Amino acid sequence: MSDFWTQMPEMAARLDAVRARMRLVVSGARFPLSHAVVSLIDANGKMLRPAFMLLAGGFGRRRNVDLTGLAAAIELLHIATLIHDDVIDASPTRRGAPTLHTAYGAKDAVLAGDWLFSRCFALAAQSSSPGNATLLASLISALCSEEIHQDLERFAWPTSERNYLRKIAGKTAALFSLSLRAGAVEAGASPSVVATLTRVGYDVGMAFQIMDDVLDYESTEGELRKPVGNDVREGLCTLPLILALEAGAPGLRPLLGPAAPNDDSVAAIVAAVRDSGALSSAKARAATYTDRAMRELASLPRGRAREDLHAIVGRLLTRTF
Amino acid sequence: MSDFWTQMPEMAARLDAVRARMRLVVSGARFPLSHAVVSLIDANGKMLRPAFMLLAGGFGRRRNVDLTGLAAAIELLHIATLIHDDVIDASPTRRGAPTLHTAYGAKDAVLAGDWLFSRCFALAAQSSSPGNATLLASLISALCSEEIHQDLERFAWPTSERNYLRKIAGKTAALFSLSLRAGAVEAGASPSVVATLTRVGYDVGMAFQIMDDVLDYESTEGELRKPVGNDVREGLCTLPLILALEAGAPGLRPLLGPAAPNDDSVAAIVAAVRDSGALSSAKARAATYTDRAMRELASLPRGRAREDLHAIVGRLLTRTF
Repeated sequence: MSDFWTQMPEMAARLDAVRARMRLVVSGARFPLSHAVVSLIDANGKMLRPAFMLLAGGFGRRRNVDLTGLAAAIELLHIATLIHDDVIDASPTRRGAPTLHTAYGAKDAVLAGDWLFSRCFALAAQSSSPGNATLLASLISALCSEEIHQDLERFAWPTSERNYLRKIAGKTAALFSLSLRAGAVEAGASPSVVATLTRVGYDVGMAFQIMDDVLDYESTEGELRKPVGNDVREGLCTLPLILALEAGAPGLRPLLGPAAPNDDSVAAIVAAVRDSGALSSAKARAATYTDRAMRELASLPRGRAREDLHAIVGRLLTRTF
Repeated sequence: MSDFWTQMPEMAARLDAVRARMRLVVSGARFPLSHAVVSLIDANGKMLRPAFMLLAGGFGRRRNVDLTGLAAAIELLHIATLIHDDVIDASPTRRGAPTLHTAYGAKDAVLAGDWLFSRCFALAAQSSSPGNATLLASLISALCSEEIHQDLERFAWPTSERNYLRKIAGKTAALFSLSLRAGAVEAGASPSVVATLTRVGYDVGMAFQIMDDVLDYESTEGELRKPVGNDVREGLCTLPLILALEAGAPGLRPLLGPAAPNDDSVAAIVAAVRDSGALSSAKARAATYTDRAMRELASLPRGRAREDLHAIVGRLLTRTF
């Protein structure tokens, strides 16, 4: 379990219950690769999406509603996408352990992801209203579609900030937003609280993704466990690069070609983006979303649920500044 | 459209409506590979699963229930698995056209399959009772799990007839069974009719799959558009081979090794299976399921729905003998 929750033992315990449910879903039936998927569940990170869902449940009238099943479904979907990501990227390891793809081949890894997808949808259909099950399925399809768009745009270096914002809105922001919304709906929160939480999720997701994209230009390898400049290496044009290009960072444009840049080019691109002041500008954009999220949070009914959500959003969005 | 339905113009028209709904699902949203998935829908075969679902709807009290959405969902799931199958097998073409995998690469093909999976589940959740949405999702996970089992058993040549029957029960039979069951449930058929149709679907599926496996040893290349002995080439041990081994077909066992047999070995295996009388034995097993399906059909309420279902089951299971 991530250290993220040590200061909130109750949430840590509830997330343990979600994780236990996830293991149960995966271990049941006659699924031959259960142990491998269970390892992925055990190595899983902060579990932010289920945590947001559980927190949103605290705003409802039905305080005792059990959101464990739906929270497990949303996090298992995340695991399913990780399995397919590893096949797609042919990654040999994930968090130090061999990927399913490495251990069992691409065929069984694709099938294991498909298996998990359908288990999740079954769980979501069982554990929630048809509206939320539909919403969850629609969101996943939107995420896949967005990933394909992104893949088709690789190394084309599109420079529209608006296009970038739309992409992350359909990805991270939509997922955070859905987690809060679904939790609130299932717990019977009022329509205005549901609407506010939906907006909070959107704003938190936008800020979170922008900061994540900034970190790729800022962190040293140890912190993120991935090389700096990973996005540009993969041909992805994120906000820091877009803002640096807009600011006319000298020598930057010619470094961006139609194929993966070599290590020297990546270093030069990262340096040019850093020197351009684009990271501060991007952080300012993130801060705008964070501020809005905080204002919206302040308009929610007072109480434990609001305090907890406030604390987590604060820690999440200030992790490096 | 397949020629299969030319003698049943009403069903052909209803399946056209299902196909139109499938196209609509795929064309909506902002999905970048719609055209490629639409081509797969256009090239699609008999659409047996949606046809069975629509036919089962005729046994319900709610004669006007619209099963188009659920029927489209079940057939789109089939298309999603085809897309992933082509990635897994690295197939260059399907029905003469380049596969998604060939045209856009493995990454976008995996994502396109995932996209379609989640669109289907959203459609199923919208178009049916939560019970049927859950059933559909559970069935898909069972199919994936079965495929993995099958993959792990390749070239191990397990000789248990019982094991074989269990596998096809969880695969083809479960899918046919679900199609009939879900159609009947949505249309408000009585519990006893639902139970009978569920059994009919199971028996038809068992007979259909056994005959399919027999055909792989029987057909010439032209008929099936795939080489004879395809299963054994891929290391799959189907009923004809199991029965031939049980019958002690001379010289057969030593031909079955831990890797893909060459063309000569395949020809020798196919000949040994044919000479052993295993094909007649396998057909007798299929006939047992067919007979049972026909008896069960005869116990259903008289009328147009029963006549149509009877006609289709008859044509399907007697396609080559």
